[in-house]
Amino acid sequence: MSYTYTINEAHRLMTTQLDVPNRLLLGPGPSNAHPRVLQAMSLPPIGHLDPRFIHLMNEIQELLRYAWQTENSLTIPVSGTGSAGMEAALANVIEPGDVVLIGINGYFGLRLADMAGRYGADVRIIQKPWGQIFSLAELEAAVAEHKPAVLALVHAETSTGARQPLEGVGELCRANHCLFLIDTVTSLGGVPLFLDEWQVDVAYSGTQKCLSCPPGLAPLTLGERAVQKLKNRRHKVANWYLDMSLISNYWGDSRTYHHTAPINMNYGLREALRLVAEEGMAERWARHQAIVELLWQGLAELGLHCHVEPEYRLPSLTTVRIPDGVDGKAVVGRLLNEFNIEIAGGLGELAGKVWRIGLMGYNSRPENVYRLLDGLKRILLGS
Amino acid sequence: MSYTYTINEAHRLMTTQLDVPNRLLLGPGPSNAHPRVLQAMSLPPIGHLDPRFIHLMNEIQELLRYAWQTENSLTIPVSGTGSAGMEAALANVIEPGDVVLIGINGYFGLRLADMAGRYGADVRIIQKPWGQIFSLAELEAAVAEHKPAVLALVHAETSTGARQPLEGVGELCRANHCLFLIDTVTSLGGVPLFLDEWQVDVAYSGTQKCLSCPPGLAPLTLGERAVQKLKNRRHKVANWYLDMSLISNYWGDSRTYHHTAPINMNYGLREALRLVAEEGMAERWARHQAIVELLWQGLAELGLHCHVEPEYRLPSLTTVRIPDGVDGKAVVGRLLNEFNIEIAGGLGELAGKVWRIGLMGYNSRPENVYRLLDGLKRILLGS
Repeated sequence: MSYTYTINEAHRLMTTQLDVPNRLLLGPGPSNAHPRVLQAMSLPPIGHLDPRFIHLMNEIQELLRYAWQTENSLTIPVSGTGSAGMEAALANVIEPGDVVLIGINGYFGLRLADMAGRYGADVRIIQKPWGQIFSLAELEAAVAEHKPAVLALVHAETSTGARQPLEGVGELCRANHCLFLIDTVTSLGGVPLFLDEWQVDVAYSGTQKCLSCPPGLAPLTLGERAVQKLKNRRHKVANWYLDMSLISNYWGDSRTYHHTAPINMNYGLREALRLVAEEGMAERWARHQAIVELLWQGLAELGLHCHVEPEYRLPSLTTVRIPDGVDGKAVVGRLLNEFNIEIAGGLGELAGKVWRIGLMGYNSRPENVYRLLDGLKRILLGS
Repeated sequence: MSYTYTINEAHRLMTTQLDVPNRLLLGPGPSNAHPRVLQAMSLPPIGHLDPRFIHLMNEIQELLRYAWQTENSLTIPVSGTGSAGMEAALANVIEPGDVVLIGINGYFGLRLADMAGRYGADVRIIQKPWGQIFSLAELEAAVAEHKPAVLALVHAETSTGARQPLEGVGELCRANHCLFLIDTVTSLGGVPLFLDEWQVDVAYSGTQKCLSCPPGLAPLTLGERAVQKLKNRRHKVANWYLDMSLISNYWGDSRTYHHTAPINMNYGLREALRLVAEEGMAERWARHQAIVELLWQGLAELGLHCHVEPEYRLPSLTTVRIPDGVDGKAVVGRLLNEFNIEIAGGLGELAGKVWRIGLMGYNSRPENVYRLLDGLKRILLGS
């Protein structure tokens, strides 16, 4: 071996062993990972074509179907974080010129619109103030007006804490030859979701919210109508890494190599989904609801007000109005630095107006609610 | 909380605690992770905007600059596996209609061409039989003929084991107003690389090869000429998740939220890069070379022949010709099942003709060479 150049040592940073603070992550995500998930992630990697890994892939697919309440064959984790799932969902079902109707009532609706435009969609939008939801009548009127090829809604808006009701929307879409696509990043594993009953054609999520696995994978599912559209595309999917017509061969029977899967992230997701199956969907959803009601009651006792109407509040994420005269950012900073608790401020329309508090998966437990309420009380009331 | 539907328990898979075999991963990747990397990955996640995570991001950037021997400011890990790095590299510097010249002498050259086409490039190719390399004269002639906006070459072809010499190519590109883009997936951290001396404008890699971190991140670096092209784009990058004009704000001074980074994967990459800095580039490259020479000598003693000329053989990946009359796939299967060693067969032109043996990062140690040679000897010679 020989080379002509001198090695530049300027960037040879000698730094310490990693030491991270023990944060209680009650913001919009990531939430704390379950210890069993972290343990699984630290097992040695095996090959992405190893028969043992193939078996694990099948288990993950099956467990995702349970969490999403779907029979969809094409149900897999995309090898990126939640936004990669969003992009995979759009990229695979949009062909240039397709009308894509997007409900924007928060930050992630805006993101859907930005992404859809990059895939050549004719993007149409309907809007609501952040924190409100769309009625079925409003959606019916918009579908009649725009005649979209795809309708995209955010089931759980992480930026606002609002839960978009989805009953009846699937039927509306089928009657109008439109695919129904939803964002379930902050609902999967914590908020009732019935993909097949709701006739959802495409959904995606993330691992770092109610599944209590670190970020790094994005569950994605395509129903039969979406798969048919994918199979009959006129153009290649305009994104190689997220092209489900290729990836489905790796996750399907032929196991054709596409890209190297993030092995240890898949170990973690499997364990996170095992925890979901052990608990059961009914029990898990009920737990999230019971625990968030503890939070809402405690906030009210501190004189704080939730931003979203009770009927449409997410159990996984609560937006709280910052009282007049309170420096919201300073409170976030004190919670982090003095109490080791992370919560977050608002985005977009809600920037400076709300705090965002997440109670997701492993974190949805009474002691976490009490610890946060205590911190807020000490900071806001000085006692 | 109420819902109308009955929960479907059909997919509620009750499965066992994860137990993975202790494979010696001597295929084309992933390689075995260093135990310190797995330990770092199992630490609890913190938020992607936490000041402590921001500090860790800076450390990773600095350590990547050392490993790549570059001063590039825009040097980050992309939140996906190696192929996401390839796509990020292309998507950010290609505008529709750009002539992109790609050297194809293996599988990953083909992949570059497929991806570049999806971003609207006018793809031109030069080809060599798999396992051979392009001479500077051949590249000069091709650049003169095609006048590309981007020239893309694979430094370390994982499918063939060939090392493409890069001296002089950067100068050629600058003289012809062309960006120089290289794939270093199987070279970063194991094979001499001098990005700045070679005047490389864009490079990407993966974590699961010579860095000995599980797959899940893809280091990417853009030099000043590439950043200028990105800043002056006429169209948005046709890929939201990989759009460096947005992501550079998160990794840059403003720290604007783009997507949630894979926190624990970044813990692992930091530790992997610390191990690189502790060892030093000169020592690391010399180790890879010394260890692979042990392998080559042992293979010769077994009567086996390497596919690539000695001068252009990669230290990180060796292709070995399968002798006439030997069932290559059966040998791979026996190594896995009887010896717990993973190696791989060939792809494309080399399918059925070669085995691929990787000695990468943590795995580049004499005992692994001896263990593999012993397994091969027992299978091929029956002793």
